[in-house]
Amino acid sequence: MSDDMTERMLELRSLVTDRATVQVSLEAVDVPEPGPDQVLIRIGAAPVNPSDLGLLFAGADLSNATAGGSADRPVITAPLPPPAARAAAARVGQSLPVGNEGAGTVVATGSSDAAQRLLGKTVAVAGGGMYTQYRCVDAGACLVLPDGVEAVAGAASFVNPMTVLGMVETMRDEGHTALIHTAAASNLGQMLNRVCIEDGIPLISIVRSAAQVKLLTDQGATHVLDSTTEPFMHDLTAAIAETSATIAFDAIGGGKLVSRILACMEAALSAGSPYNRYGSAVHKQVYIYGTLDRRPTELARNYGFAWGVSGWLLTPFLIKAGPARIAAMRERVAASLTTTFASSYAGRLSLVQALQLDAVVAYGRMATGTKYLIVPHG
Amino acid sequence: MSDDMTERMLELRSLVTDRATVQVSLEAVDVPEPGPDQVLIRIGAAPVNPSDLGLLFAGADLSNATAGGSADRPVITAPLPPPAARAAAARVGQSLPVGNEGAGTVVATGSSDAAQRLLGKTVAVAGGGMYTQYRCVDAGACLVLPDGVEAVAGAASFVNPMTVLGMVETMRDEGHTALIHTAAASNLGQMLNRVCIEDGIPLISIVRSAAQVKLLTDQGATHVLDSTTEPFMHDLTAAIAETSATIAFDAIGGGKLVSRILACMEAALSAGSPYNRYGSAVHKQVYIYGTLDRRPTELARNYGFAWGVSGWLLTPFLIKAGPARIAAMRERVAASLTTTFASSYAGRLSLVQALQLDAVVAYGRMATGTKYLIVPHG
Repeated sequence: MSDDMTERMLELRSLVTDRATVQVSLEAVDVPEPGPDQVLIRIGAAPVNPSDLGLLFAGADLSNATAGGSADRPVITAPLPPPAARAAAARVGQSLPVGNEGAGTVVATGSSDAAQRLLGKTVAVAGGGMYTQYRCVDAGACLVLPDGVEAVAGAASFVNPMTVLGMVETMRDEGHTALIHTAAASNLGQMLNRVCIEDGIPLISIVRSAAQVKLLTDQGATHVLDSTTEPFMHDLTAAIAETSATIAFDAIGGGKLVSRILACMEAALSAGSPYNRYGSAVHKQVYIYGTLDRRPTELARNYGFAWGVSGWLLTPFLIKAGPARIAAMRERVAASLTTTFASSYAGRLSLVQALQLDAVVAYGRMATGTKYLIVPHG
Repeated sequence: MSDDMTERMLELRSLVTDRATVQVSLEAVDVPEPGPDQVLIRIGAAPVNPSDLGLLFAGADLSNATAGGSADRPVITAPLPPPAARAAAARVGQSLPVGNEGAGTVVATGSSDAAQRLLGKTVAVAGGGMYTQYRCVDAGACLVLPDGVEAVAGAASFVNPMTVLGMVETMRDEGHTALIHTAAASNLGQMLNRVCIEDGIPLISIVRSAAQVKLLTDQGATHVLDSTTEPFMHDLTAAIAETSATIAFDAIGGGKLVSRILACMEAALSAGSPYNRYGSAVHKQVYIYGTLDRRPTELARNYGFAWGVSGWLLTPFLIKAGPARIAAMRERVAASLTTTFASSYAGRLSLVQALQLDAVVAYGRMATGTKYLIVPHG
């Protein structure tokens, strides 16, 4: 593509203005040209993951979002509450591309062998800026999807699958043998349930409704607890005593659940032991990897001193894990992309549809069963 | 000492009853007899550390404590609020000895050479149950105090000095190069200040009054911040930017200070960096090692995902550190017991005086400058 023949494409952008609002819009930009070791992907599909929403909406109050722009160039505008505005200070005025991962077809390549070998292949990538019609990435960043797996099936092959495997690997690395997971009826939670069944890892899934208990139980889960019921603390303590789960991954963050999990771990561990004023000596760990509840995390600290609460993200885990382990994890994902690591979606949205107010409210809720797939050429 | 000649002694005991009260009293018990490898110490002095108060009072509401018993056998009784009562469930009905550490003279020994070698020596020990007139311990647990160092000077040679060194070692082990400390005007905080000056470690001391700022500044501290002042967050961020302190040890626990420290670390780390929606990649750690404030710890989580908040105790650290490192630490402490590792006291209390209501209120407050020394034969 020479300069005078440059094609144009639409790309979704998020902009925080100095008036403490976020504007999400579609920009017409030049289709990029691949460098020597790059490939140009025509994006077939890109999921809206919870981890995309922070960049997309910057913590805005979506109940006060308004629609503007034109029919083919809609603009969503929403106000940022003061804490969100403070947190977004560093991105004011920058029009940012969005979309952690996606999949599509390689339609042009740079001159290198590695790049040219990918021409025509369906590939998945996690490089950011995937809510766009075309995306240039390094050839090495592409995961070639197995024959017969289309872009819509491979679009979510990175974030959730690698997060699930990262949780399991973290559990093993830190010497635990069973897991607790919250908001566990999510796509990610269902996937974790399948991986734990495959690997024989006891998993305690914490959900927030009877329907979600049924959903996971129907998928073979053994320990599914509804945190809104009265005997929750008792049942969780019993499940921990049975499984010895001393590590939890929490997607919620705010409120008291993290502290309750630690208290139940402590109760299960100290049952029948002699009194120790410092609590049990076994380390109890909760990793917070999401922010479904933006309120503060409240730690009652009524579980001794052998505990930790930390943030957890996939990227730092992968940096620590190193290339060989990452490759093994990606191979496992690719081999079971339509089974163990499959995602299910509430629907598909074109770029224009993704910027309709009702759609924004639907996927912005981050509720179970509201995961959407953006199809940029749809 | 044969059975019919067994001497009696007084020992301080703490008992949680099934009526959710704690009773602290003096029991007359037999002076124990050393086993082959043990020594009998006539306890000269034992400090009341904050870490003793949990066992001593079981989280009771001391503002409602009452005095009972007789003049030479006083009894303090205090009610436990429901959370404290729940936490103390495992110790109901057990009359527990108290006192983490102390020092005294070896007045009898078992038959082993190691034990006999200690006869007549002034030794320090951290074996629990030190608020007593005589205590039997393993010969190997004794730290022989240097010539001329008396029991009152060596009584606090373990908990605070080893905690301070443990903090510094943890800082180094985890790759940090500067420290933040809260409630920093405490005996422990002053000691940490002296060690950090000796070792050239930048230290940020957080205190709660202008008088405490002066106290530490007069002792050569460079960064002393009063958290009750308006510019505290700004000043803390600036001090972190200057020192690169990404690890803190917090004695307070409850409230928002832990979260504020993490927010200031994040602000200092991300200043001038490009926007990253997941926060800075540098791990920020706060270890909670005390409970001066029993309210929940509130984590606002407005500092990305590279953070951790954990309980920290000396004993698990020492277990990880191993005998060789412990020996090196204890040698350093013994060599500077009256200088770097000296404690200062508000006063000395006999066992009977320790169970007077005004004394209990004084040392139960855990306020700066209210550290007391129990002298069991006083």
